[in-house]
Amino acid sequence: MPKHPAYPRLEELFRKLSILGDTTSVLQWDMATMMPDGGAAARGEQRALLKAMAHGLLTAPEVPDLLDQAASETLDPWQSANLREMRRDWTHAAAVPAALVEALAVAEAACETVWREARPAADFARVRPRLDALLALVRETAAAKAEALGVSAYDALLDQYEPMGRAADIAPVFDALAAALPPLIDAVLAAQATRPAPLVPAGPFPVAAQKAMGIELMTALGFDFRHGRLDVSCHPFCGGTPEDVRITTRYDEDDFASGLMGVLHETGHALYDFGLPGGRWRHQPVGRARGMVMHESQSLLMEMQACRSQPFVAWAAPKLKAAFAGQGPAWEADNLHRLGLVVKRDFIRVSADEVTYPAHVIVRTRLEQALIAGSLSTADLPAAWNDGYRQVLGIVPPDDRLGCLQDIHWYCGAWGYFPTYTLGAMTAAQLFAAACAQVPGILPGVGAGDFRPLLGWLKEKIHGHGSVLSTAELVADATGRPLDPAVFTAHIRQRYLG
Amino acid sequence: MPKHPAYPRLEELFRKLSILGDTTSVLQWDMATMMPDGGAAARGEQRALLKAMAHGLLTAPEVPDLLDQAASETLDPWQSANLREMRRDWTHAAAVPAALVEALAVAEAACETVWREARPAADFARVRPRLDALLALVRETAAAKAEALGVSAYDALLDQYEPMGRAADIAPVFDALAAALPPLIDAVLAAQATRPAPLVPAGPFPVAAQKAMGIELMTALGFDFRHGRLDVSCHPFCGGTPEDVRITTRYDEDDFASGLMGVLHETGHALYDFGLPGGRWRHQPVGRARGMVMHESQSLLMEMQACRSQPFVAWAAPKLKAAFAGQGPAWEADNLHRLGLVVKRDFIRVSADEVTYPAHVIVRTRLEQALIAGSLSTADLPAAWNDGYRQVLGIVPPDDRLGCLQDIHWYCGAWGYFPTYTLGAMTAAQLFAAACAQVPGILPGVGAGDFRPLLGWLKEKIHGHGSVLSTAELVADATGRPLDPAVFTAHIRQRYLG
Repeated sequence: MPKHPAYPRLEELFRKLSILGDTTSVLQWDMATMMPDGGAAARGEQRALLKAMAHGLLTAPEVPDLLDQAASETLDPWQSANLREMRRDWTHAAAVPAALVEALAVAEAACETVWREARPAADFARVRPRLDALLALVRETAAAKAEALGVSAYDALLDQYEPMGRAADIAPVFDALAAALPPLIDAVLAAQATRPAPLVPAGPFPVAAQKAMGIELMTALGFDFRHGRLDVSCHPFCGGTPEDVRITTRYDEDDFASGLMGVLHETGHALYDFGLPGGRWRHQPVGRARGMVMHESQSLLMEMQACRSQPFVAWAAPKLKAAFAGQGPAWEADNLHRLGLVVKRDFIRVSADEVTYPAHVIVRTRLEQALIAGSLSTADLPAAWNDGYRQVLGIVPPDDRLGCLQDIHWYCGAWGYFPTYTLGAMTAAQLFAAACAQVPGILPGVGAGDFRPLLGWLKEKIHGHGSVLSTAELVADATGRPLDPAVFTAHIRQRYLG
Repeated sequence: MPKHPAYPRLEELFRKLSILGDTTSVLQWDMATMMPDGGAAARGEQRALLKAMAHGLLTAPEVPDLLDQAASETLDPWQSANLREMRRDWTHAAAVPAALVEALAVAEAACETVWREARPAADFARVRPRLDALLALVRETAAAKAEALGVSAYDALLDQYEPMGRAADIAPVFDALAAALPPLIDAVLAAQATRPAPLVPAGPFPVAAQKAMGIELMTALGFDFRHGRLDVSCHPFCGGTPEDVRITTRYDEDDFASGLMGVLHETGHALYDFGLPGGRWRHQPVGRARGMVMHESQSLLMEMQACRSQPFVAWAAPKLKAAFAGQGPAWEADNLHRLGLVVKRDFIRVSADEVTYPAHVIVRTRLEQALIAGSLSTADLPAAWNDGYRQVLGIVPPDDRLGCLQDIHWYCGAWGYFPTYTLGAMTAAQLFAAACAQVPGILPGVGAGDFRPLLGWLKEKIHGHGSVLSTAELVADATGRPLDPAVFTAHIRQRYLG
């Protein structure tokens, strides 16, 4: 046995990388919430340097040898899982030449900048040359990572967000959903049409009252303000570190629901971060959240499953009424509950309801797979987008602003991300159903504003496992079966047709 | 000539160090203004890692060779000055063994923690063992740096805050001031006693109104909010980076002056940062502010010289009256001007007026020199402190809370810092007198809330020079003579006895 075991040296390396990541996370939060515009260039330099230093540490010449050597050392199961995750990080980082990494970053920034002008102008042609240039570099990166990982190009991109996520596993799930959705959406809309439309409470809703209500709801869900904050940004997000979780929302004085739903969604993300293993695994890859599917499942479990349930809305309704000095039948729990469950065929993903949302994601996933495979050209993207919407949702966007220009993802380089939204929604439905079935106190707790029983179950089944298991293993262990689209459609049927 | 010149490689190294420093600055601002308590340990890890990485870069084995090689390369005057500052940074960093750096950091944290309990309890004995341990390591550090820099131990500490600052240059200045002060304070107090005491405006003064007023004053002084912010912290400070300057204050609803004076003081620091050379020198040592004496001079020039002047208070008084809906004679300009110039013999440095402030600093400077030299033991510190106050200020603190326990500096390791306060105050008086004499529009501008003439002069004479000249050279070039305590005492006489 060698005198200096490799595994502890790797733990020390990844501890540094984790802390550098935490530092970057603070810089990003500040950029989105506090930084004046004039600080942007300097902040860019700071982030680029930290990224380059982290990349330099991770791809140092001795790392592959340490990984190989550690593989023959005696490790416990968590250490073994940690080594597996370390190798994944290293493989992703080392697969791509530094020049390509840099070219990709430049192309991402250039494409996103033009996209910000092209979207409001509904002018896809304006951004297409930049998108082509970016896509070429994304495909080159995907090919390099595919070879290193031994997977397809698309899977190599997906693996960046959802470790061990594979298109071959997603296809049957999405195909089943794509087949079930059109008749299901028809049925939900037909049922909805038989009932009077819910009343919309009249504003304005002062920001200070919305924020106070947000803090009250976060506290009920289990957010610990000794270890986190709520602030405002253009796009809600959950950032910071597990000891100091920073969530954001945005407030609309005419619509209290959008800001509060953002709060509940990001609180779901935050509770996952709070519940991670910590301790000796705090700065190790195995101690991280499992991936974007599980992270999205935790936000949607709170926002869509627990907090749009009848018991929760019944608990929250009088608090909302009091907070906004509301009057009349619009503030009754039943009305607010139905208001949160309005379904509509529409063009925009981010404002879609939970019934139609998967259709938006399935269209995008199929298109980005074809674009990465090279079987679709960006010249044909707008038409293919509209065809997809016609098939899965039965509507056609009037222009590309409401079509293939609406999302930032492709234009900022986030290829392979879209499927995690719907996989997350399905996972949320399956986890919540299992939790309520296994622990009788969970649903009554949600209805009393006491999320401790639910959080205890999530901590035990999901949060506390970090990345020691795969997403598929976590779901199977927690719910007794693999991810099953029928659970999601059953949830939709029960809630909207039951 | 060698193929690879060393100087550009050094510029690249120091660029990284500067950006790492900027990153740390953002983390520190966040810690003081935004971070929940539960984030403290993780933030400590982040700062420690960045510090260690910066230290590793600066003390890499090739750096001394690069510094030597660059010294024989053809450099313009700014590059030569830059190389001189690079060598100073390296000398400070390389002089001290890593184990001593770490031991010092641990001792600082331990001593500061106990001091936070000992101060309110007025219990110097409780913190003395920690202070002894810390002082021993400070002296060891000072000795190591003294040998590397070729200066005395105390000067090595002073040099950390005020490059090229030397006790031998300070002594005659402080001795002259120490001799002049007692009769001057007597005369000012006697003159003050002949006039009725100024009226104190009655509060409360809502925080929102104080903040709005602060922003209005900052804007008048030239603070650019596209490149900075105003927030709240326990102790006012100026942080961030020159593109994104973050100043803070604290608000007292019973006293609007304390918060606004904090704003004006920190705005002076901010304007110095805004005015630094930037461009190719932005991330180079020669592009930095000159040192703590000049930095403090810029804050005091705004707070004490310009903004307590009769013309400025006459401009600001009606705005203050309107902002706080004030009524009666307390809000008249003459009363507010006199209120800002009340002089009092008291025990606490941070709340001292500009007449007695130097006495507080002279006592501390003499004591810390004796403690570093080893001619005074901490056992004798409380008595020596009280003796010093009796001699220079004519009062004796009733306990150590109001005596040698009041300031954090010695207990957190900031030895050699104190003289910069009074050197800064003297420099401020000399610069402001010269500016007003050289540019007739400056004082009328200050009296019209238009600081552009003053700022133009400061930018030309001080800010834009970065660290290319020494503090002494900057003062001599800008004012036509070396720092002269007679200018400061003349300012006091003119303002309080004139």
